[in-house]
Amino acid sequence: MGSDGVAGLFDPERVAVVGATDREGSVGRAVTENLLDGFDGSVVPVNPNREEVLGEPCVAGVGEADADLAVIAVPPSLVVDVARECGETGVRHVVVLTAGFGETGAEGADRERDLRDVAAEYDLTLVGPNSLGVMSSPTGLNATFGPDAPPAGGVSFMSQSGAFVTAVVDWAKEAGLGFKDVVSLGNKAVLDETDFVRAWGDDPETDVVVGYLESIDDGRAFVDAARETTDDTPVAVVKSGRTDAGAQAASSHTGAIAGSDKAYEAGLDAAGVLRAESVQELFDSARALAGGDLPESDGVAVVTNAGGPGVMATDAVGDADRLRLASFDDATVDELSASMPDEANVYNPVDVIGDASVERFRTALDVAARDPDVGSVVVITAPTATLDFGELGEMIADAADEHGVPMAACLMGGERLADARAVLRERGVPSYFDPARAVGGLEALMEYRDVRGRAYPEPEPVDADRERVREILSSVRDRSDNRLGVEAMEIFDAYGIPTPEGRVVDDAAEAQSVAEGIGEEVVLKIVSPDILHKSDIGGVKVGVPVAEVGDAYEDLIARARNYQPDATILGVQVQEMIDLDAGVETIVGSHRDPQFGPLAMFGLGGVFVEIMEDTTFRLAPVGADEAREMTAEIDAAPLLRGARGREPVDLDGVVDAVRRVSQLVADFPSIVELDVNPLVATPDGVRAVDLRLTVDPEELES
Amino acid sequence: MGSDGVAGLFDPERVAVVGATDREGSVGRAVTENLLDGFDGSVVPVNPNREEVLGEPCVAGVGEADADLAVIAVPPSLVVDVARECGETGVRHVVVLTAGFGETGAEGADRERDLRDVAAEYDLTLVGPNSLGVMSSPTGLNATFGPDAPPAGGVSFMSQSGAFVTAVVDWAKEAGLGFKDVVSLGNKAVLDETDFVRAWGDDPETDVVVGYLESIDDGRAFVDAARETTDDTPVAVVKSGRTDAGAQAASSHTGAIAGSDKAYEAGLDAAGVLRAESVQELFDSARALAGGDLPESDGVAVVTNAGGPGVMATDAVGDADRLRLASFDDATVDELSASMPDEANVYNPVDVIGDASVERFRTALDVAARDPDVGSVVVITAPTATLDFGELGEMIADAADEHGVPMAACLMGGERLADARAVLRERGVPSYFDPARAVGGLEALMEYRDVRGRAYPEPEPVDADRERVREILSSVRDRSDNRLGVEAMEIFDAYGIPTPEGRVVDDAAEAQSVAEGIGEEVVLKIVSPDILHKSDIGGVKVGVPVAEVGDAYEDLIARARNYQPDATILGVQVQEMIDLDAGVETIVGSHRDPQFGPLAMFGLGGVFVEIMEDTTFRLAPVGADEAREMTAEIDAAPLLRGARGREPVDLDGVVDAVRRVSQLVADFPSIVELDVNPLVATPDGVRAVDLRLTVDPEELES
Repeated sequence: MGSDGVAGLFDPERVAVVGATDREGSVGRAVTENLLDGFDGSVVPVNPNREEVLGEPCVAGVGEADADLAVIAVPPSLVVDVARECGETGVRHVVVLTAGFGETGAEGADRERDLRDVAAEYDLTLVGPNSLGVMSSPTGLNATFGPDAPPAGGVSFMSQSGAFVTAVVDWAKEAGLGFKDVVSLGNKAVLDETDFVRAWGDDPETDVVVGYLESIDDGRAFVDAARETTDDTPVAVVKSGRTDAGAQAASSHTGAIAGSDKAYEAGLDAAGVLRAESVQELFDSARALAGGDLPESDGVAVVTNAGGPGVMATDAVGDADRLRLASFDDATVDELSASMPDEANVYNPVDVIGDASVERFRTALDVAARDPDVGSVVVITAPTATLDFGELGEMIADAADEHGVPMAACLMGGERLADARAVLRERGVPSYFDPARAVGGLEALMEYRDVRGRAYPEPEPVDADRERVREILSSVRDRSDNRLGVEAMEIFDAYGIPTPEGRVVDDAAEAQSVAEGIGEEVVLKIVSPDILHKSDIGGVKVGVPVAEVGDAYEDLIARARNYQPDATILGVQVQEMIDLDAGVETIVGSHRDPQFGPLAMFGLGGVFVEIMEDTTFRLAPVGADEAREMTAEIDAAPLLRGARGREPVDLDGVVDAVRRVSQLVADFPSIVELDVNPLVATPDGVRAVDLRLTVDPEELES
Repeated sequence: MGSDGVAGLFDPERVAVVGATDREGSVGRAVTENLLDGFDGSVVPVNPNREEVLGEPCVAGVGEADADLAVIAVPPSLVVDVARECGETGVRHVVVLTAGFGETGAEGADRERDLRDVAAEYDLTLVGPNSLGVMSSPTGLNATFGPDAPPAGGVSFMSQSGAFVTAVVDWAKEAGLGFKDVVSLGNKAVLDETDFVRAWGDDPETDVVVGYLESIDDGRAFVDAARETTDDTPVAVVKSGRTDAGAQAASSHTGAIAGSDKAYEAGLDAAGVLRAESVQELFDSARALAGGDLPESDGVAVVTNAGGPGVMATDAVGDADRLRLASFDDATVDELSASMPDEANVYNPVDVIGDASVERFRTALDVAARDPDVGSVVVITAPTATLDFGELGEMIADAADEHGVPMAACLMGGERLADARAVLRERGVPSYFDPARAVGGLEALMEYRDVRGRAYPEPEPVDADRERVREILSSVRDRSDNRLGVEAMEIFDAYGIPTPEGRVVDDAAEAQSVAEGIGEEVVLKIVSPDILHKSDIGGVKVGVPVAEVGDAYEDLIARARNYQPDATILGVQVQEMIDLDAGVETIVGSHRDPQFGPLAMFGLGGVFVEIMEDTTFRLAPVGADEAREMTAEIDAAPLLRGARGREPVDLDGVVDAVRRVSQLVADFPSIVELDVNPLVATPDGVRAVDLRLTVDPEELES
């Protein structure tokens, strides 16, 4: 769906309401009323049984309306036919308000499929079904059956919940939010979040895109579209279903299959989309982002006329991952000292004292905003007797404009600060009661600044013997289950991932001769698809002297047979000894997410992954820079860098292994899950010591 | 200060305003105006230079006013004299608004000390100096120079920031907050947070105590007072200065020495005080706590007429540490199925669907509230056409009253839901826009429920040879620094904490003979107060065969001499080998906080403490139950319980060691810092293997 197509939904000249009616309490009446109230274009009620609706003359069919947008509010059984009629008569933009489709069971799902087919046949730009509708403030379009239209502004908003649209629209005025376009996505039979993210990226009137999403249908397409948009327009979403309970509730609400939240986290991050955890955080961010200016440094100045709130703001800055309290240079401190009374605090947080005038506040703001370490400013006022708060609001907005430094106002009060609040709303400066929320708004700006600085390079190509991997993966066709273990270690060789010396052998003499080529002692591991937990049955022998390898081989085979007489035994892996004490055990893994495809995982082995859950995820494949970020962002990262007096491990080797594993899983969609556990990293290099992977035979590459 | 005394501040019959004046913009005028506006009692302006102030006849001195509360607003240099006059003429309650004391440098600090002395001499119940004043709604008392008085209600509020009082009072109306007493603590020369926490615990009209604090002056006294109060009155505070930057800002704002935030965290927890991280969280909690009912289970029911917001609330419940989504029993599901339309969701979250009437909502609430797993309910509404929201508000309040089950309303909208908001405020049911905040309110109730269930038993007594410890600690008197190491291991014996076999010897032959009594191999460690990092100079030898102990002894001594020729060398510790691989290294530590005294710390050794910062703190001494909680609440706790196929360690032994160490530091104020690192825990027991402690010679017990 092209974005021109989507933009047309919000900018029609003539709207047909199919199912328009005067009947009180009906969707058809509500949407007609909303359209008649304030829309710049024409509205044509369509109803074969009426002459006129709400005083407007009716036509009998959508084809007679000559409309460029059709809003459908007929009973479910008629919707598909009306959509077809739209297609046949050249109406390309359609919004289906009618419910009773995929959300209601088998019959509805069939109906939804039919609707999708018709839309595809006629290339319809179709919203819904089960949508509250669409709105757009420049033309006054309100093609919803909700009770109100929101104030105009630069926020474009999509929501997978119609009720939430109603809630936000009603709340917008007191929240100081203004909207450009609004869409209730409904069942997303045709258009979904990806289409709107793309379209709003091309819309000069959209300053910020905000979404409430319960699912993202095609994760990779969304990432591609969002990356383009976030290059100059910030996007912030609540993706609900974050927790297990929430995911189950979302799934029962929308019928969508819940992907893992780790995948959404990785996907939204890859897309450059800011993820909010609550409605409040979402719109707090949106108000800050709508301002336009971005901080040039993570240093924050706090300027306040009240000490306590200044301390609170400072705490919030201390809590923020992406912000820190700015350190003023000497010139700033001198200038503040010269212009402030003695009792003022001229270090950050700057306390201009309770009797400050607007002028003193302005001086402090000017000096602070010019300090080279200051990227953004929190301005705090409590209700004081000395200030005209409307004037204060104008001053803050002027200062923000003149310095091009983002400012967030913390207006700690109620009615007495109402004038400041109103002025700042008008002038596009975000204001909050709570200092922590003001700081949260600035943090969203820093996060978006980082997104905007991203390059998204293609991951470096990986030389690999893909043919060999294909063969190894195909071997599951002949096996009792879909899992491969150490017997598939050759996959690592094919992808240039270092492994310990050695190989799988199937007789004792060969074991002996392989061991002789390796060193004085070796590791032996039983290789069988039927024995998952090798250690539990004594299927691993460590530190076997070369002379004893033959006997040890026979013993392992015997143990395996004893454990499970009908087990398929592929042989024994004879492997170089790796000194685990000299290195750090890491895990490089992957699993395939239904929405976002293969993910790359990195963590430290054993207790770190299993108990501390100290892992990080990315969409696969990753390039070297991303892989390096992954190795740096786990909590235990200092261990890799040589904490506690140890030598640092070969970090380049780790990064390269992560990159290559991620390319491997990206290259082979048949790999459902893969764990390199451990990948041992020492100062001298890395070795992939063990492997477990699961293959989906249906997806096997031919 | 008795609580009767403090209560008298809020309930005077006759208030003298010393420094009353008509001068525009003065504190003396503002406070007189506020007092004359609405106070039930009498107001007597005191000003020797005027006949009347604001139409009220003046007296020349406070002694002539016959008042039971004096508000002082005279210049700083006169304050001490006026306070003395209060004392001499029998005025026991004094509020000093005047600034220019401890917050302004040496002269002010002297003045503050004089004021404190006068207050002590005459047993004055004194607020301030540098206070905005006090307010109390039952009598209409507003003895502040702030612009407004707040709505009446059950919240009593103390603040270490006067501006924050002004902010909250102005904001109270829109925030739906009603206040009983309010005090601006000012410089806390006499009365502080402890006095008010105690007094409001005895006040039947105070439903919840809320505080903004930048310091707590006497941590242990506060804990004692708060424990009594929180037994039936919840207390919630923001203690700012949580972060390093914030602590520095708070310290420069109040002049108080910043204790560590870990100590405040432990102290507030020990006090049963709920700690909020932001102003919003503080008052969100307060509104929920003011309601009175507490949940009987951590199970939450969500009842909503909009699917999306229901999912958001479910996510918030999933995020909450103390709440979970309730599982309805079959009877609940059947009853809901029978009474709801087909499209409704009768599992939790219950979706009563957008067309729900107040009656349908009520049915769902009744059924959900009766479910045995439900301890509290989130009720969510979006603006819909079918509801009268005033009626909905009454219904929710009725349901909450009748079931005695706490309910939090999530009113997702603005003006359209104003009626519901107003009714719920009136009826004391907390309401929020954001589902996450509604859930946060309920979580505060659960947290307070747990506080109310606490017993605070005295820690079990510890048998110990305190005399021996006193001697060992005194040995620092003769030493070059204040630190003790393994040479003080006997302290553990004195407190019944198991140590490896062995002792410190000072010749090779003795080393040999001690080793023979221990086993085949031993550990040798150099013992010198001048060598802190023994391992770095090769001062530790592990696995020394008994036959080689003599040589190893000489070698260690030689290394130490070589490393530092003038080092004091106390000898060599000959110690039993402890197999670290068979156990888990833990750390038991303590440090002394300026406000809260000795703290007990527990964590896992090495990387867990140093890199993952996985530690927990309590006020020392701890009893066995608290010590057990500590061992359970670190992230790595599963390692102690035998994660990853290992045998569990002797947890009782760990608990006992933590308890005994905590008693040791509580018994000896001279111990400034102590680390048992490691305390090795195996399945068979625990051993304190190494020790480092710092002694303050000034505090040495005689």
